[in-house]
Amino acid sequence: MKVTVIGLGLIGGSFALALRAKGIATDIVGVESSPLHAAKALELGIVDRILPLAEAVEGAELIAIAVPVDVIPQLAVKILNRVTADQIVIDMGSTKGELCEIISQHPARSRFVATHPMWGTEFSGPEAATADSFAGRNVVICQKELSDAEAVATVEQIYRKLGMGILEMDAEQHDLHAAYVSHISHITSFILSTTVLEKEREEEAIFNLAGGGFDSTARLAKSSADTWIPIFKQNKYNVLDVLREYIHQLNLFRKALERDDYKELEQIISRANQIKRVLQK
Amino acid sequence: MKVTVIGLGLIGGSFALALRAKGIATDIVGVESSPLHAAKALELGIVDRILPLAEAVEGAELIAIAVPVDVIPQLAVKILNRVTADQIVIDMGSTKGELCEIISQHPARSRFVATHPMWGTEFSGPEAATADSFAGRNVVICQKELSDAEAVATVEQIYRKLGMGILEMDAEQHDLHAAYVSHISHITSFILSTTVLEKEREEEAIFNLAGGGFDSTARLAKSSADTWIPIFKQNKYNVLDVLREYIHQLNLFRKALERDDYKELEQIISRANQIKRVLQK
Repeated sequence: MKVTVIGLGLIGGSFALALRAKGIATDIVGVESSPLHAAKALELGIVDRILPLAEAVEGAELIAIAVPVDVIPQLAVKILNRVTADQIVIDMGSTKGELCEIISQHPARSRFVATHPMWGTEFSGPEAATADSFAGRNVVICQKELSDAEAVATVEQIYRKLGMGILEMDAEQHDLHAAYVSHISHITSFILSTTVLEKEREEEAIFNLAGGGFDSTARLAKSSADTWIPIFKQNKYNVLDVLREYIHQLNLFRKALERDDYKELEQIISRANQIKRVLQK
Repeated sequence: MKVTVIGLGLIGGSFALALRAKGIATDIVGVESSPLHAAKALELGIVDRILPLAEAVEGAELIAIAVPVDVIPQLAVKILNRVTADQIVIDMGSTKGELCEIISQHPARSRFVATHPMWGTEFSGPEAATADSFAGRNVVICQKELSDAEAVATVEQIYRKLGMGILEMDAEQHDLHAAYVSHISHITSFILSTTVLEKEREEEAIFNLAGGGFDSTARLAKSSADTWIPIFKQNKYNVLDVLREYIHQLNLFRKALERDDYKELEQIISRANQIKRVLQK
């Protein structure tokens, strides 16, 4: 399969490497606005060559968009303006509402499959890409009914070969769940990091004592602003909603501790423990 | 070495298994108030036998206390009341201020070495114990100067054989750093879990979308109330101090998002990214 990947960071780079590792792509063209990332992606063998957008789209069987979510909608339109009836376009972004609205009336809408592979790390750039990404995780496909069945089937088959489970959701449902399950975690992690860096003047202590749990809860704080600000912006309503609830619950915990109400803390913690039911690992 | 371990949960159980795996302990006696845990620890070969406290202390070369931190101080005194000049007592608790104050004037204080191995998981009970725990992490030893040099040397040697690095701190410093680096992470995780369980009515969605980062930030929410409430209680002042700062910083983030101040969000995230310097993995 001839594949074009637009955006050769963590997600696009990993997708290209995985497609090659699984023998799905024979020829991979990259589009990348950063000359540094482009050079690195070539050096690492992530893509065979780098081309400008118009040339990269022409003749590709699959075009995958893996750029920050604020750029996806317009880029999707530009690509749909050029595709023929045998080409498939997908995006891999973390929000879906804005994108699906922007492309909704496009005459070539049916060649687009909106996807969100639920995988990522706190690292970014082509150097962070790995070939064994995605496996064992799920991919969400949004508004399947607006895509050609054959295009959906091809995309699902590709994700299955990468070891992923397929989920179906409408775009609004997706953005709501993503706020709960992914976006808020990044905020709690960013803020945990700023708080500890603010309060803990001895950075060596953070490093030395990191076995105490901080390392896993603050891991996502390394994530890139370029990726995450557009996500918070596009999903602002849902993100604020969960964030306000989170702050409210934190204040309940704080007040219970202030007044030595350990019965209340016990109730909060047993409710929190219920997450065992859903996170089995 | 003849060792007695008091409390056969995650920490005590893992310590016993590790001592045996490294050939440090030949004979391990357990003291355990829960008959279920005691039976399980015997079944899993964590200890050779279970004895009442007084008998278990008699003749042991090393007595390790691994019970919740609210029970440690009184238990430490009871044990120090019985030990002879060739026995060593350690604790493995997550707070040190209260304990060190309670035992400070005890005539046998010098036989006690206050330690905190910086390792743990979100699981509890003897079933959660593993033999390869502790390795690669640090252990904090508090108020070394109040322990006999020979006792400290023996304890350090044991921890080194388990693959741990040794850190020295006074008890107050320890509790302050532990609040920043460990205790607050558990609170953010507990509350993330309660928030998501509260807001996300479709638990299946949490499970299916867990690759998005929630799994690592909410992992600690499985931790046991029996362990953590006593820690929050004993370290209340430091924990509240970090918690208030955390809520304050979250509110700054929330307000910036509310007023679409993405410059401010970018500044917050770049400050958060600085954690890369201290968490290298």
